[in-house]
Amino acid sequence: MKKLINVPENVVREELEGIQLAHGDRLRVSLDPFYIVRKDAPVKGKVALVSGGGSGHEPMHGGFVGLGMLDAACPGHVFTSPTPDQMYEASKAANGGAGVLHIVKNYTGDIMNFDLSAEMLRADGIEVASVLTDDDVAVQDSLYTAGRRGVGLTVLMEKLLGAAAEKGASLADLKSLGDSIRATGRSMGMALTACTVPHAGKPSFELGENEMEIGIGIHGEPGRKRMALASADEITEMLMEPILSDLPFKSGEKVILFVNGMGGTPLIELYIVYRKAAEIAAKHGIQIVRNLVGSYITSLEMAGTSITVLRADDKLVSLWDAPVNTPGLRWGI
Amino acid sequence: MKKLINVPENVVREELEGIQLAHGDRLRVSLDPFYIVRKDAPVKGKVALVSGGGSGHEPMHGGFVGLGMLDAACPGHVFTSPTPDQMYEASKAANGGAGVLHIVKNYTGDIMNFDLSAEMLRADGIEVASVLTDDDVAVQDSLYTAGRRGVGLTVLMEKLLGAAAEKGASLADLKSLGDSIRATGRSMGMALTACTVPHAGKPSFELGENEMEIGIGIHGEPGRKRMALASADEITEMLMEPILSDLPFKSGEKVILFVNGMGGTPLIELYIVYRKAAEIAAKHGIQIVRNLVGSYITSLEMAGTSITVLRADDKLVSLWDAPVNTPGLRWGI
Repeated sequence: MKKLINVPENVVREELEGIQLAHGDRLRVSLDPFYIVRKDAPVKGKVALVSGGGSGHEPMHGGFVGLGMLDAACPGHVFTSPTPDQMYEASKAANGGAGVLHIVKNYTGDIMNFDLSAEMLRADGIEVASVLTDDDVAVQDSLYTAGRRGVGLTVLMEKLLGAAAEKGASLADLKSLGDSIRATGRSMGMALTACTVPHAGKPSFELGENEMEIGIGIHGEPGRKRMALASADEITEMLMEPILSDLPFKSGEKVILFVNGMGGTPLIELYIVYRKAAEIAAKHGIQIVRNLVGSYITSLEMAGTSITVLRADDKLVSLWDAPVNTPGLRWGI
Repeated sequence: MKKLINVPENVVREELEGIQLAHGDRLRVSLDPFYIVRKDAPVKGKVALVSGGGSGHEPMHGGFVGLGMLDAACPGHVFTSPTPDQMYEASKAANGGAGVLHIVKNYTGDIMNFDLSAEMLRADGIEVASVLTDDDVAVQDSLYTAGRRGVGLTVLMEKLLGAAAEKGASLADLKSLGDSIRATGRSMGMALTACTVPHAGKPSFELGENEMEIGIGIHGEPGRKRMALASADEITEMLMEPILSDLPFKSGEKVILFVNGMGGTPLIELYIVYRKAAEIAAKHGIQIVRNLVGSYITSLEMAGTSITVLRADDKLVSLWDAPVNTPGLRWGI
């Protein structure tokens, strides 16, 4: 295992200490329990957006805390759900009196723990709602999931709901907008190499020198098929076509296209994937009105890519363009 | 070789096509010869900043073209200098009549070709100056370099000079500011794994399962020493101490600290490195006034990190904070 770490059991704590040191101007890190909140939290009168999940997907979620995106994030240990206690404390720290919205990726542990924390918050008189992401078209059920997995759409969801919350949307409005984003976004990913969870010390799975896995999950969960390495254009087609035909996206529609790196994939390769994805979209008559290219929802050092496509009307585009100031995504401010 | 590419000889062209498709709102890509310019180039009356070098270091340099940073960038083939012709055409396309400043990393091929292009530009009556980066304290001469290699400082140089140029600085002022940044910034890097140039098809060098290389160059050039894998804290110390003692940086000074990923290193590890680097700076009485954490000058999929420290007075901090709108670095706009 070759990693820039000290000891496996301290990886998340030391990462959080680094985040506090680097971004203390914008964020506040709690080490007991682990969570990250906006430095100016709670923002009075604003709905607080709170997300979380296992670590190892950076910059998601902690890197998306800040003005125009999340109010708080709870990092679990690597690839492990955070506890209800973390979610409860993070939500309390972020709550500005207008309610709390939990953004939850569809993994059994995450859902159970966010549900428990919501009960605890309601017992304190705090209004809580939640939106789910389950955008991965690759497989129906999976290792840690009943139904589809929540993946790249979560990044777009956090940006868009964050902008709406900043503009003063109510908890009910945000829940409804989140549900509509959930219904109109689809993703799929693939891996060239595996990744190694620090405390496991060995790769989560094995891929041969000439093999790849199409439809992989962000924790290395099995995908649709393992097959011989193909070209970037062929791979992009194997991701884009199932995404487009699932919703389906139709000719004339406008979308946001997100080409994501899994953590170990250099940007030079992501632009080659973007090129083909844009060509396929054009062939289907689909207009890309905004895009995002980079490693935003990762799987440690896994090499690979995922693609997310989301329907985008003018309202969504204006939320996308709204200012955001987080370590992971920033513009307009 | 596991990469998201089609055929090795098309990697740079297809990457550039992807960049045009993704960022055509801000950039214009030329495919013959290869260069990237701001969409609004030439900006009349503004000094044009032009850089370039081999591809494989993305987002540097092409991802730093835009308002507040570079006016144009010339990508060579992977790890190969661009040609004088590319630099000449890019400079002509960017020239707004106030002269052209070339930002050149200290590699023999880059220097020679930028010099040749400057002669061609002068023959056309265009005023040209150049600033060099040679910030890598690891080794004196290297495979492709007489003197020290230009590495991470280049990213900071492009941001800072870009801001000054946007504010209307003259060619002479920019040259002088660039020389002073060159004189007060230092870097050093290390690798956990090698990288593979697409048309070579095999790793540029070999590192054993328990080995790392301290002082590596951004093309995998030999560093100071190859040794057994150490902890993140030990590695950070092996980079920070030579950097700080080289200038030397002294107690009471203010700096910008840049912790860079080599392309295959996940962000979770970079924050662990940042944590220790900040601790070492504090121990030396050095105050970090701004920072950058992420993969901005990469070596394809190499796993590893580099650290750059630059003295920063109030003027430099205000240039750092100025708006920038590029695919690779964006804020304030």
